[in-house]
Amino acid sequence: MIGVSAMLLHYTPIWIVADAARTCTDTIAFSDDNMEDVLGPRDHALIKRICCKHAKRFDPNHDSILEHLNYTFHLDFSRACLQELARHRHASISVQSTRYALHKAIDGEAAHCVYDSGHEDVNDMAALSVSFVSTMKNLKVPNDVAKYAIPEALMTEAIWTINARSLRNFFELRTVPRALDEIQKLAFRIYDEIPEGHKFLFEDFVYNGEE
Amino acid sequence: MIGVSAMLLHYTPIWIVADAARTCTDTIAFSDDNMEDVLGPRDHALIKRICCKHAKRFDPNHDSILEHLNYTFHLDFSRACLQELARHRHASISVQSTRYALHKAIDGEAAHCVYDSGHEDVNDMAALSVSFVSTMKNLKVPNDVAKYAIPEALMTEAIWTINARSLRNFFELRTVPRALDEIQKLAFRIYDEIPEGHKFLFEDFVYNGEE
Amino acid sequence: MIGVSAMLLHYTPIWIVADAARTCTDTIAFSDDNMEDVLGPRDHALIKRICCKHAKRFDPNHDSILEHLNYTFHLDFSRACLQELARHRHASISVQSTRYALHKAIDGEAAHCVYDSGHEDVNDMAALSVSFVSTMKNLKVPNDVAKYAIPEALMTEAIWTINARSLRNFFELRTVPRALDEIQKLAFRIYDEIPEGHKFLFEDFVYNGEE
Amino acid sequence: MIGVSAMLLHYTPIWIVADAARTCTDTIAFSDDNMEDVLGPRDHALIKRICCKHAKRFDPNHDSILEHLNYTFHLDFSRACLQELARHRHASISVQSTRYALHKAIDGEAAHCVYDSGHEDVNDMAALSVSFVSTMKNLKVPNDVAKYAIPEALMTEAIWTINARSLRNFFELRTVPRALDEIQKLAFRIYDEIPEGHKFLFEDFVYNGEE
Repeated sequence: MIGVSAMLLHYTPIWIVADAARTCTDTIAFSDDNMEDVLGPRDHALIKRICCKHAKRFDPNHDSILEHLNYTFHLDFSRACLQELARHRHASISVQSTRYALHKAIDGEAAHCVYDSGHEDVNDMAALSVSFVSTMKNLKVPNDVAKYAIPEALMTEAIWTINARSLRNFFELRTVPRALDEIQKLAFRIYDEIPEGHKFLFEDFVYNGEE
Repeated sequence: MIGVSAMLLHYTPIWIVADAARTCTDTIAFSDDNMEDVLGPRDHALIKRICCKHAKRFDPNHDSILEHLNYTFHLDFSRACLQELARHRHASISVQSTRYALHKAIDGEAAHCVYDSGHEDVNDMAALSVSFVSTMKNLKVPNDVAKYAIPEALMTEAIWTINARSLRNFFELRTVPRALDEIQKLAFRIYDEIPEGHKFLFEDFVYNGEE
Repeated sequence: MIGVSAMLLHYTPIWIVADAARTCTDTIAFSDDNMEDVLGPRDHALIKRICCKHAKRFDPNHDSILEHLNYTFHLDFSRACLQELARHRHASISVQSTRYALHKAIDGEAAHCVYDSGHEDVNDMAALSVSFVSTMKNLKVPNDVAKYAIPEALMTEAIWTINARSLRNFFELRTVPRALDEIQKLAFRIYDEIPEGHKFLFEDFVYNGEE
Repeated sequence: MIGVSAMLLHYTPIWIVADAARTCTDTIAFSDDNMEDVLGPRDHALIKRICCKHAKRFDPNHDSILEHLNYTFHLDFSRACLQELARHRHASISVQSTRYALHKAIDGEAAHCVYDSGHEDVNDMAALSVSFVSTMKNLKVPNDVAKYAIPEALMTEAIWTINARSLRNFFELRTVPRALDEIQKLAFRIYDEIPEGHKFLFEDFVYNGEE
């Protein structure tokens, strides 16, 4: 039984968002020297004020500038979680194919490719289904047929690119207790991967028990 | 064992697309009288020419005007098919929730809520998984845990709204033989529901054996 | 000198959104009989509660179901306003072309195709520029060259389709006093055109002096 | 009189797209060692084959993987060109504001902030309008009023982020002779800025006189 994981592969340096903000208002001369992927104090305060205040009716954030920051991750999660992840339409995802790479998912011991639901019987049933699919493959049943017996617990993997504006929305929806437990865990793994100098863009939308 | 279905709930009348085309070029005076949801001969020829020619490099369609036509369907399909349907990001989908409506999916005889994969053993395994989930529910295991044993064959339903430009792309990708058999069937059911006077907008992208 | 206008050409009936909400939770049996494009009391209360509460952090609306409702308008406004309208990317717009329909915009008395800025000198300067462009056209200067002298006050027209979720965002941003005066006026004209039975979906995001 | 310009500020390294392609099919073991932002021969051939073939009906590219590559540019162009650039909805743009930064655009000699249309009279008329707006500003007329006299020739600037899939579409539409001359020039400036190892992703959609 295994769990989710996230690894950051590439990201846009933070000074881009200060550059975008200051292009709109022609105040580039007031920008800090943003070395080492950390904003200086003036730019940090500016971006926090215009992007990360808590929007009220008729007083929205100017968060479109956050779209210039992109993050690309390698993620591991279950097909149940994929059903939720794919609904974030402002993101780009390339997922392991059940047509071309089903063997990858189900090779080896079934238990090693099933998400740990926290309930032994559910895990066992999912592992049984995976073993069945493995047998079907050995009998040359096409992947497109065998896949109908796949349990949603089957682990998969993906490359996922999302911009900072959309990622804020993802954290807001997916770090809260009422979200599916697995996607909460994935969201926190993703947050852990965010570079230190970028974390202030997201921390108000990462649930921490208060509200 | 059951199959996919599609029912058209609402759509935009076809004269809107002629109005949009003729607003761009200020030729509204040349428009036909487009009664009864069928374009007159001049508007039909115009829209076919600018939207439905086969795009070549450097000679794209002017198909953005097709975005004004929206179609809303009620659809029945499996969770395997949902994995593919949800990847069409230029569409809006409201899907039966496995958290709130899992009972709906799995009540009654398991075989009645499983997509017919065409392979008896696969169908039986999927039905067994559904029965297991039903038992878990009776034992008060939360839906968010029990769902990990759901097979991708489990039937679900959705309200799906898509505009004509995006729907052309859907037909192009999903009516061809290499698409998943189930989504091919669903695509043809959807095409059957398109009003007669609108079909010419799509027919060149609905696979018919030739190419 | 003239102003903005909006005319609703087509819209989706309101029962679709109740159908979408109740498909997610399988509660269609509790739906009202939604005749005459007005929701019954149970569905009205449901949709208002899940779509139109005021989102707080970690407590977002379930407003994706509003994407099933689409509205198509014919709009008149200036090129200055087009610069702002085109930034609403979750909408479809077909605009009068300056390449093919510049004659339409500038025929007749210049003053009749210039937006009234409220400042006489500005209006006069804009009218002078329009007269100049008209002269250039008579001298056979191509539209693609002459257009560089067009003032942003030049009136244009468009067919604009937007769904209810995106339209809520439009009203939130564009009905407030700090929005460009013209787009405020356009936003209120658009709101006036919304069918009575749909207005409750938007009224909390249409600025009324309170907050 | 001045022209367009483009400067690349940041981009995603090319190996990400090979990683995405090989995650889908679980063939990461066959990937090249993609050093120095150039794909090795196997990955180059793979990406060219699946992303850059010329799509035919029913045989589309697998170009969604190109969405993982993002490019951020600083661009200079006219307000006429902005009207076209803003219509590319699969991109993120932060534009110099006419409300907050109009002074920037119109300070100094009017001729220096007007796009060269290639026609002396048009340029002169545009420069006259800019001088008028400058005078209005000195008379304390608000930017939101004075802007109605701005000519579309007025230069502006923006930060623009676009992924490789959307950029291919931009090049296809905007490098051809029938595109507005200015946006053709801008498109070629943008192409010049693309890193050498990435150019093969775009070259088939950059017009070169043949077809």
